[in-house]
Amino acid sequence: MAAPLADRPAQRGGIEALVSLVTDDMERVNHVILSRTGSDVTLIPELANHLISSGGKRLRPMLTLAFAGLCGYSGDGGVKLAASVEFMHTATLLHDDVVDESDMRRGKLAARMLWGNEASVLVGDFLLGQAFKMMVEVGSLAALDVLASAAAVIAEGEVWQLSAAKDLATDEATYLGVVTAKTAALFAAAAEVGPILGGLDGRERRAARAYGNALGVTFQLVDDALDYGGVAELLGKNVGDDFREGKITLPVVLALRKADDAERAFWSRTLEKGEIAEGDLDTAIATLRRHDALEATIGRARAYGDSAVQALDAFPDSPMKRALIDTVAFCISRAY
Amino acid sequence: MAAPLADRPAQRGGIEALVSLVTDDMERVNHVILSRTGSDVTLIPELANHLISSGGKRLRPMLTLAFAGLCGYSGDGGVKLAASVEFMHTATLLHDDVVDESDMRRGKLAARMLWGNEASVLVGDFLLGQAFKMMVEVGSLAALDVLASAAAVIAEGEVWQLSAAKDLATDEATYLGVVTAKTAALFAAAAEVGPILGGLDGRERRAARAYGNALGVTFQLVDDALDYGGVAELLGKNVGDDFREGKITLPVVLALRKADDAERAFWSRTLEKGEIAEGDLDTAIATLRRHDALEATIGRARAYGDSAVQALDAFPDSPMKRALIDTVAFCISRAY
Repeated sequence: MAAPLADRPAQRGGIEALVSLVTDDMERVNHVILSRTGSDVTLIPELANHLISSGGKRLRPMLTLAFAGLCGYSGDGGVKLAASVEFMHTATLLHDDVVDESDMRRGKLAARMLWGNEASVLVGDFLLGQAFKMMVEVGSLAALDVLASAAAVIAEGEVWQLSAAKDLATDEATYLGVVTAKTAALFAAAAEVGPILGGLDGRERRAARAYGNALGVTFQLVDDALDYGGVAELLGKNVGDDFREGKITLPVVLALRKADDAERAFWSRTLEKGEIAEGDLDTAIATLRRHDALEATIGRARAYGDSAVQALDAFPDSPMKRALIDTVAFCISRAY
Repeated sequence: MAAPLADRPAQRGGIEALVSLVTDDMERVNHVILSRTGSDVTLIPELANHLISSGGKRLRPMLTLAFAGLCGYSGDGGVKLAASVEFMHTATLLHDDVVDESDMRRGKLAARMLWGNEASVLVGDFLLGQAFKMMVEVGSLAALDVLASAAAVIAEGEVWQLSAAKDLATDEATYLGVVTAKTAALFAAAAEVGPILGGLDGRERRAARAYGNALGVTFQLVDDALDYGGVAELLGKNVGDDFREGKITLPVVLALRKADDAERAFWSRTLEKGEIAEGDLDTAIATLRRHDALEATIGRARAYGDSAVQALDAFPDSPMKRALIDTVAFCISRAY
């Protein structure tokens, strides 16, 4: 195995320490989220709350609160920006489900299956509008700049992914570019606005951004490995989604480097042409395992996780800093 | 006829006076639009420019420039906010086409027919992100507030329209609520940011908003009448779109008030159930004409146009003010 279990960081508190340190503020974030999805057009709260109440870890808004706290900020702005970040994320999920034609999201029927693609597109737009309204209320042009830029970069990353889909020529650099844009940009922005609120515009701001970016890549790489069952051959509900959608993720990019002609023909038929027969997902997983592609993907995730931890050197030791270190370990441990 | 031709305002210069007064700034707006749709992800400029280059009157960005000029502002901010307004509008069109499953837009194949629904959703999101980035660059929190609120209200109006679609119980108040939100909100915001840039935060700002709002309703009501051929029985390319999509627009709302049982059954079959046979559009148009519903719709448009003109009382006479009065007449004259 490329990355033996012994090499992985001690898991310590997982994500619990972070959750517990921001728990009061997250309750206020949840309150803001509920009140800002309110509308006389009842379809909006129905659809938005279907997705929002179905959980998710709320990692992104917690990053905003954590870095605001780390920089000594304790005003209302953190709660509003955290809620904005979660709205941006939710809007992306709604639009992604339409783009990917997904049936399920977070173990429930995707909103588009219950209310149609039209409502998913428009409620996503509504949440994006509400997110920007809240950011404006906070009144920091620097924070607005960071989050508006992230919105453009995320969409650019999604279009890039669409252009690269079903293309076996996608290389690791292209893949990482897509991931940095479509996933890590929001993690980076969520973290970066914390120091901005705290009035720390130099080293701490750059460090928060670097942490968020690296954590975002870590998170996505682990997700990609989990979509093929992860290193521990977990069989979660979403195993095989990327495969069925023809997404060329890092495990496939790495396995393609070592592929013989028969394997290349297999990936071409399934991912490029979308001709997927019974048993093909098992073959895909077996092929990825034979080339240690899932372990190698987690190895990359681990390296990004290390840079996330290093970025925190800009901050003195504190319970919050330790919780953010644990969060990196938590993201990697999901693969096992 | 409810609104005889003799009653309509003299058309004077139509929209040409406005176009000519903002022509230099609009060239800069077009330059900004082209540069801000640039991306290494080539699908983005391809798709965005397909729609942007296909024309449209650019009424909304011209409003921003006109009211900025009317308030003595001549800085760069007007050009950037005007381009932001056009991006918000373009994003709405891209998402609308997906929601309405439209085949055509501005006489060309809709972007979604050429690049797919996925790309239309995501490039719309990209343009929205770029719009907010530009607004942030201008640095006016008041203008950001106005435009971010408009973004949320527009999406809310679109969802509202979706909820009311195919529902013959839609009344005039509901219909006007939808139109105010989905169409007039952007006209109002586009106009309102002009005085904000000019540092006029009181009477002029409220007047600009009132003008934009009333002009937006005028514009949409005329559009709705044109979708059934207008008063002059024009047969443009888009005649019948609303009918085929089951949209309950004002002409239908007004005709339903006078409908007998057979007519009510006709509207229910075609608009509510979507069972449309050959000749039904002709029947719909004949029914609307029999009840003077198109003339009555234009009568409402004319009343909104009058309030738009009245709102301009807040400004002293000037060529720009006269051009904005002519613009109202132009919007109404489209129906003839």
